[in-house]
Amino acid sequence: MDNVVQKQWEEVDKKLYKVLIFKDFQEAFAFMVRVAFLAEQHNHHPKWTNEWNKVEIWLSTHDAGGVVTEKDRSLAREINELLLVEAN
Amino acid sequence: MDNVVQKQWEEVDKKLYKVLIFKDFQEAFAFMVRVAFLAEQHNHHPKWTNEWNKVEIWLSTHDAGGVVTEKDRSLAREINELLLVEAN
Repeated sequence: MDNVVQKQWEEVDKKLYKVLIFKDFQEAFAFMVRVAFLAEQHNHHPKWTNEWNKVEIWLSTHDAGGVVTEKDRSLAREINELLLVEAN
Repeated sequence: MDNVVQKQWEEVDKKLYKVLIFKDFQEAFAFMVRVAFLAEQHNHHPKWTNEWNKVEIWLSTHDAGGVVTEKDRSLAREINELLLVEAN
């Protein structure tokens, strides 16, 4: 995904948080579709918000009482890899 | 989409707001894909949040200074129709 502007994951309020800005809605939503499949594979799902070209993602583990666990870090890494692959 | 629990649209803070609860993430995201195509058709896009089986949608018209306009009501109606069709 070319021209995506992203900040690295940061831990905010016991969640991993990332914000991404895409070219337009189609690019943003195409990314969300890929993350949706990743989330199903991991059986671990984000809370996320989209508004036009902007996607915000929060990862935390409900079963662990709403803190950041390896499940979140693993999904976060795979989301990063998705963005790297797309950039090539 | 069977078994979707939804409240009717209500105007909250100068936005049309709706919350929907689906069976699971796949059902919720399948709905979002359909709404994404509607949004592109209308060239009018929601702010929305998804968390597992829950989808929240906010519609307002940025160009009109962030109030509810016919653009929002039109998209809201088509989202309702989508849900009706799917229920049959």
